[in-house]
Amino acid sequence: MKDNSKISSAVIKRLPRYRRYLYDLQKKNVDRISSNELSNLIGYTASQIRQDLNNFGGFGQQGYGYNIQSLYNEISAILGLDQEYKMVIVGTGNLGQAIANYTHYYKSGFKVAAMFDVNPKLIGLRINDIEVLDYEMLDEFMKNNTIDIGIICTNKDSAQEVVDKLCAGGVKGIWNFAPTDLNLSDDIALENVHLSDSLHSLAYYINRNKQKDS
Amino acid sequence: MKDNSKISSAVIKRLPRYRRYLYDLQKKNVDRISSNELSNLIGYTASQIRQDLNNFGGFGQQGYGYNIQSLYNEISAILGLDQEYKMVIVGTGNLGQAIANYTHYYKSGFKVAAMFDVNPKLIGLRINDIEVLDYEMLDEFMKNNTIDIGIICTNKDSAQEVVDKLCAGGVKGIWNFAPTDLNLSDDIALENVHLSDSLHSLAYYINRNKQKDS
Repeated sequence: MKDNSKISSAVIKRLPRYRRYLYDLQKKNVDRISSNELSNLIGYTASQIRQDLNNFGGFGQQGYGYNIQSLYNEISAILGLDQEYKMVIVGTGNLGQAIANYTHYYKSGFKVAAMFDVNPKLIGLRINDIEVLDYEMLDEFMKNNTIDIGIICTNKDSAQEVVDKLCAGGVKGIWNFAPTDLNLSDDIALENVHLSDSLHSLAYYINRNKQKDS
Repeated sequence: MKDNSKISSAVIKRLPRYRRYLYDLQKKNVDRISSNELSNLIGYTASQIRQDLNNFGGFGQQGYGYNIQSLYNEISAILGLDQEYKMVIVGTGNLGQAIANYTHYYKSGFKVAAMFDVNPKLIGLRINDIEVLDYEMLDEFMKNNTIDIGIICTNKDSAQEVVDKLCAGGVKGIWNFAPTDLNLSDDIALENVHLSDSLHSLAYYINRNKQKDS
């Protein structure tokens, strides 16, 4: 396997975005695109785009540009989207259910294997054809199944305990929606989606714009 | 009003996080904290913390540290969280409903005034005591109400049209959950929560860790 570990995290953050645009271009049956045309679409400069894509050998050809299909496939492979991931969701309130239903993900090889909750009203429900299991069964479930990703949709006070169980159960990554920061070992990947932080940033920029106007 | 427009966006991104920790400390009845103690909690270096907080006059006192209550209030005010925001949600599938129910926000002065959808099965439903209205009524609703924030929970193909309507209707900020990039005027604030980008980054880091191990 190619060594992509030297690609900077700033580039990695941009790759899913490139991939989204390349996906749309494919859908429109476009075969190839120049870095200038990509720049007009995505908003990064053409030189930034060339630099980003050169990182992993996505070389455009002079006078031809990038082959969209192969660039899309390459970026997908770098992101690991040519593989399948088994996931569990812990916390099946509205947000957990929304994540479970976000079928977009399933198309990309992310499969929810089970969902867990402590609430007797939720246990036994079927969401997107996946049964909500009793949180008490999490340890045993993790023993009997190979799960790649644990998704945390609990409140912030339960999040660390859940993460500890998931890590003991062998997950390789945590996708955290609880509004708290988690402690976990360096060899387990972590992505936080802190909704309240995002909303608070939005409030800041709204007020900064108001100050400019006044 | 104090001019905070010179604070860098990197600092702004960290403020909601400081605020979360200060909130927890308040709840534990802690009165004051040194930059070193804050550093141990949050994980930023003490000198980074002093630099960040000096940006807006949050000076700690030698031998005393920061007063938690006043620092919390100051950061809240900078973020504009001492004000109330009226919001509409467009798209009331699972994600839209999850956002509507995320009551955490209401406590901070973010109020959902109305929700909209095109789906006859959803129109008329009450979620968190807010009725889902017909999307056809959005223009008129925006004419008759002052709305600060529009929340986009539609699919990506509808997102830009919805944003255009909301901007014409006078919103000051857009909180976008649709997996697409939006065009809007510079004086309207925009925060994207691209869930699929976040999940794809997670997949990348999982695979990078695997490569390290092998």
